[in-house]
Amino acid sequence: MPGGFHARLQRAWEVSDSALCVGLDPDLNRMPEPLDGRPDAIERFCIDIVDATADLVCAFKPQIAYFAAHGAEDQLERICTHIRDNHSDVVLILDAKRGDIGSTAEQYAREAFNRYGADAVTVNPYLGTDSIEPFLAAGGGVIALCRTSNPGGDELQMLEVEGEPLYIRVARMVAQRWAPLGDCGVVVGATYPRELARVRAEVGSLPILVPGVGAQGGSAADAVTSGADATGRGVIINSSRAILYAGSGAEYAEAARRVAITTRDDCRS
Amino acid sequence: MPGGFHARLQRAWEVSDSALCVGLDPDLNRMPEPLDGRPDAIERFCIDIVDATADLVCAFKPQIAYFAAHGAEDQLERICTHIRDNHSDVVLILDAKRGDIGSTAEQYAREAFNRYGADAVTVNPYLGTDSIEPFLAAGGGVIALCRTSNPGGDELQMLEVEGEPLYIRVARMVAQRWAPLGDCGVVVGATYPRELARVRAEVGSLPILVPGVGAQGGSAADAVTSGADATGRGVIINSSRAILYAGSGAEYAEAARRVAITTRDDCRS
Repeated sequence: MPGGFHARLQRAWEVSDSALCVGLDPDLNRMPEPLDGRPDAIERFCIDIVDATADLVCAFKPQIAYFAAHGAEDQLERICTHIRDNHSDVVLILDAKRGDIGSTAEQYAREAFNRYGADAVTVNPYLGTDSIEPFLAAGGGVIALCRTSNPGGDELQMLEVEGEPLYIRVARMVAQRWAPLGDCGVVVGATYPRELARVRAEVGSLPILVPGVGAQGGSAADAVTSGADATGRGVIINSSRAILYAGSGAEYAEAARRVAITTRDDCRS
Repeated sequence: MPGGFHARLQRAWEVSDSALCVGLDPDLNRMPEPLDGRPDAIERFCIDIVDATADLVCAFKPQIAYFAAHGAEDQLERICTHIRDNHSDVVLILDAKRGDIGSTAEQYAREAFNRYGADAVTVNPYLGTDSIEPFLAAGGGVIALCRTSNPGGDELQMLEVEGEPLYIRVARMVAQRWAPLGDCGVVVGATYPRELARVRAEVGSLPILVPGVGAQGGSAADAVTSGADATGRGVIINSSRAILYAGSGAEYAEAARRVAITTRDDCRS
């Protein structure tokens, strides 16, 4: 795939004029009725959602846990191939939150970039710089967890380190140590617009992936306002469940498209 | 599999009288000559190592990255089934370092405990308590990264929080918040015996998984001395590469067994 993560993301923002990312979290308990019980339900569902929303988004973000739980890695491979072959201007982010020592990270880099053909993979910062170097050395992008929107996100991320919360130290580590090595970004939940603005101040023009819009309660418009960079871009606003499960009958793809349009427009406003 | 992680680990320590865990990190670039190029090389290699060392260990720890890089999840499933069917007293730890919000963690719990039948899974603490609750609610064990032995481990883990390094706060979070919810443990690298002793003082009788012995340079004897609990047990000493790649010819399983015996005896001394 030509171009690194940052270049492809810049182009995706321009082509789509959208900050929206659709997260692919295919929950077998919530499959629309026409797919229920089909062995290829995960693949069919994700491809239908992808095709119904591709012109509205800058990125797709499959969450690998939903595939791994059901031994559906082969379906994920085919979904990724479908995205790359049919929607080549859309960035592909593998949401896997990898974090391991260097020799193991090399294997995860191969998984993300060679096997699935992702442009970037989400990573966990707890093991430090050498745990992400293999991803950047392989030419792919990494997006590091910084401030997450789940209830327990405070427990470590808000601990005070030399007068600052830990998540700010993580943002600075990414901006100062990791960014010179390759194409990086950070994850900050939509439910904390003020913290999003603080992270933006630390990371300059690095892209920020913002989950927590929609089902998790964050506002897309607030997230864009708080997270945008100096050019008005810079954010990838993820919505998963609110779009995926907008409809439960035969019209699930159309229902997803309607919610995706609303969310994209919220991001623009 | 009857019994929770802690009960099964206690029994494994008693049956084997060994603190040794063999890590299954099957690197296709280091396969012994007789297996080189075989499509089932990963499975054959791991099962041969397992059968050659099962009476010497308390646990096996497959590192999922080495399987995911090559689309070999089906081989990992068969290796796990082989361990459970043939060496049922040995604990099975899935080394996956999962860490995600609750709804995603439910999927990872299903992967670890239902798909692979693991007794415990390694997890990353950065997202806090709700990111691990689904694993414990599913009845499986979690082993949280605390202090890692890689070069970048210092970058976050040694940051000072209220006069203590962050990894001590993580150890306390596991002991105080997580342990009441289910069977927990922590990961502390063998290359820091003094820090291992500090973590032991925080976590009481929780098991400590200690990687970094062998190829990574830590001493097994020092790790046991520093990490043991009041009963003289409490540690799971992992060695991967030094055992797996002890031989490169037809005698790789025998060579692995010889190094495993030496390492087990180091742990006892």
